[in-house]
Amino acid sequence: MSTAERAPILLTPGPLTTSYRTRRAMMVDWGSWDSDFNELTASVCQRLLKIVGGEGSHTCVPLQGSGTFAVEAAIGTLVPRDGKVLVLINGAYGKRLAKICEVLQRPFSTFETEENVPTTAADVERLLAADPAISHVALIHCETSTGILNPLEAIAKVVERHGKRLIVDAMSSFGAIGIDARKVPFDALIAASGKCLEGVPGMGFVFARSAALEASAGNCHSLAMDLQDQHAYMRKTGQWRFTPPTHVVAALHEALSQYEEEGGLPARQRRYASNCETLLGEMARLGFRSFLPAEIQAPIIVTFHAPRDPRYRFADFYQRVREKGFILYPGKLTQVETFRVGCIGHVDAAEMRQAVAAIGEALRELEVLEI
Amino acid sequence: MSTAERAPILLTPGPLTTSYRTRRAMMVDWGSWDSDFNELTASVCQRLLKIVGGEGSHTCVPLQGSGTFAVEAAIGTLVPRDGKVLVLINGAYGKRLAKICEVLQRPFSTFETEENVPTTAADVERLLAADPAISHVALIHCETSTGILNPLEAIAKVVERHGKRLIVDAMSSFGAIGIDARKVPFDALIAASGKCLEGVPGMGFVFARSAALEASAGNCHSLAMDLQDQHAYMRKTGQWRFTPPTHVVAALHEALSQYEEEGGLPARQRRYASNCETLLGEMARLGFRSFLPAEIQAPIIVTFHAPRDPRYRFADFYQRVREKGFILYPGKLTQVETFRVGCIGHVDAAEMRQAVAAIGEALRELEVLEI
Repeated sequence: MSTAERAPILLTPGPLTTSYRTRRAMMVDWGSWDSDFNELTASVCQRLLKIVGGEGSHTCVPLQGSGTFAVEAAIGTLVPRDGKVLVLINGAYGKRLAKICEVLQRPFSTFETEENVPTTAADVERLLAADPAISHVALIHCETSTGILNPLEAIAKVVERHGKRLIVDAMSSFGAIGIDARKVPFDALIAASGKCLEGVPGMGFVFARSAALEASAGNCHSLAMDLQDQHAYMRKTGQWRFTPPTHVVAALHEALSQYEEEGGLPARQRRYASNCETLLGEMARLGFRSFLPAEIQAPIIVTFHAPRDPRYRFADFYQRVREKGFILYPGKLTQVETFRVGCIGHVDAAEMRQAVAAIGEALRELEVLEI
Repeated sequence: MSTAERAPILLTPGPLTTSYRTRRAMMVDWGSWDSDFNELTASVCQRLLKIVGGEGSHTCVPLQGSGTFAVEAAIGTLVPRDGKVLVLINGAYGKRLAKICEVLQRPFSTFETEENVPTTAADVERLLAADPAISHVALIHCETSTGILNPLEAIAKVVERHGKRLIVDAMSSFGAIGIDARKVPFDALIAASGKCLEGVPGMGFVFARSAALEASAGNCHSLAMDLQDQHAYMRKTGQWRFTPPTHVVAALHEALSQYEEEGGLPARQRRYASNCETLLGEMARLGFRSFLPAEIQAPIIVTFHAPRDPRYRFADFYQRVREKGFILYPGKLTQVETFRVGCIGHVDAAEMRQAVAAIGEALRELEVLEI
C-alpha cells in the first residue's frame, strides 16, 4: 500500500498509527443485522472485559462515537439525577468531566490540583469525609493534557471504604497500564477503540458494574447515550441499538487479536515503556526537559518544554518534523509553552529514535539552538 | 482483495456495499489535529452542503456516531426547552423521533398514519392551525420501515407559511432523492455517511439553518451532541471538538468524489431507480407482492410480503440467500409478515437480477412454492 507507507507516523494520543493488518480488516462491508457481525461484537466485548478482569462483575457496553461520548454516557446513565459527583481535576480532561456534569445537570463539586500534581487518596479521603452528599467520584486515570498518572487503585479503595461509586476515564491508559476490576472497585471505566488497543477511532466502551447498570434504567438524559438501553437491546438481540460503525468494530476486533498475539497487557506496557524511555533519553540528549518528573509520567504521552530559543515557533517546528515523516502533538498547558510526543500506537523504539532524529534535524534547519 | 470479493453484497438500508476505492481510503491513518485532515473535513462539509443547495443559508455540522445521534443532536440543539414538536409518524423511525423528544423532555405531540399512508400537507395544515403552541415539525422523509416517501416539499411549505420550523430526518433519502434548501425551507436536515452517499457508517451530519444554529447556544441537553458548540469550535480551529472517526471521514470524502464523478444526485437517483425497478419487476415474476403502491415507493428499500407457504421461515430463507452472496433485511412491520430488500449501495441492476435469482433458488431449495 504505497499511500499507507508514505503516510506520516502519528506520535499523538489517538488517533494513532495502526498496523496494516488492522486497517486491512476495514476492507470488508459487514451487515449490521447479520449473525457474523453480532459474533464480532460479542467477541470484542468479551475480550475487552477479560483485559480488565471484569467477567462476572461487570458488563462491557460499546457505544458509537468518540471516547467523550462514552464518558458522557457513563455519567448520564449511572449517576442518578439526585446524585452528586466529586470530580478530580488535574488537566483538560478532568475539566471536561466537570463540564459534562454541568451540562447534564448532575450536582457536582470539583477538586483541582496543579497539572503536575496527582490527586492523592488522602485528598479523596478528606473530601468524602467533608461532604456526605457525594455519591460518585470521577477521575481521569492518565490525564492526556500532560501525561500524568493518577493513583487509581489507592483512590478506588478509599471510595469503596466510604461506600461511594467510582467512575474512571481510562481513555489513554486502558490496555497499556494494568487495571484489574477485582482489585480496583469501580462502577464504570471508560476507554475507546483508537487508543492503546491500536484500533481506529469511532467507538468507545464502558465497563459498567452489572448491578449498577441494571439499576440505572430511566436515569439517562439521552436516548442514543443510554447505556442501560444499549445493553438491554444487545443482550436481547445480539445487535447494536442503532447503526454500529461496522468497519471500526472489525478493525478493533483485528487489533485485539494482535494485542493478544503480542502478549497482552504486559507486552503492550513493555513496548510503550520502552518507547517512552527511548524518547525521554534521546530527547534529553538534544537538551529537552520533560514537564513531569519520572515517577508520575505514564508511558503514554510525554510533555516537553518548548525550546527557549526565540527562533522557535511550534507551527514551523511541527511542519518540518511532519515533512520528515512524524506528526507531533501541540501542548495543552496554559501557563507554560510545551509540545507533546505520544509513545503509543503501532511503533517501537526504532521509530522513536527516528522521530527524535527528525526533531533534531528540524531544529538545526530552523536554527533553533537554545533548547 | 480476496476477502472483500468473497464478502456478501448487502441489500440493506445501510451499512451497505461500498466500492473498493471507498474502503481503500481507510488504509491511511490521519492525525486529527493535522491540517491535511482539517482540509478533508472542510471539503466533506462543503460538498455535502452543495448537494442540498444550502450554501449561504445553512451550515453543515458533522457529528460522530450513527445517524440517530445526529437526529437527537438536531432536536436537542435546535428545539428550545420550551418549544413544542409536532412529530409526524408512519413507521419505526418516526416513533424514534417521538421517543427522542420524550427522553429529552421537549414537549411534543404526534400524528400517526398507517405505515402505508404518507402524511399529507393538508394534515399538517390542520394540525398547525389547531395547536399554536407547536414551534417545530419533525418528520421522516423516506421511512425505512417500509420504504414510504413522505411529501416533504408540500409539508415544508405549509410549515413555513405558519411561521414554524421544520426538522427533517432524511437519513435514507439524502443524496438520492433531490432536496433543495432553496425550495424546501427547513431548520435542520439530517443524514449520515453510510447511506445513499455510499460511505461507511460512523458519522452523521446536520444541515442547520445558520441563523437558527447561532441562536441555539445553551439549548442542548448534552455536551457531545451540542451542534452549536461543535460548529463554533470547528469554525475557530478547523478541527472536530472531540476525536473524529478519521477513517470514516476519509471514506466519505472518497465516496463523495465518486458520487460527483458518477454525475451527482441525478445519476445516483437514476441508478437506484433502475435498481428498484429491476427488483420489483424480477420479484413480481417470482410472484412476490410489494407492500407499498408504486406512487409512494421510494427507490431506497422495498418491503415485500412474505410467502404464504407454511414452509417459509425468514431465518432459513435469509441464510440460503446469504450463502448465495446476498444479505437481505428483515421486515419491521408488526401487523403483517414481510422482508425487505435494499436498492442502495455500490450495486446496479445486474446485481439486483442476481439477487432475485438467488432468492428464487433459495425458495426452490426450501420447497417454498406458494408465494
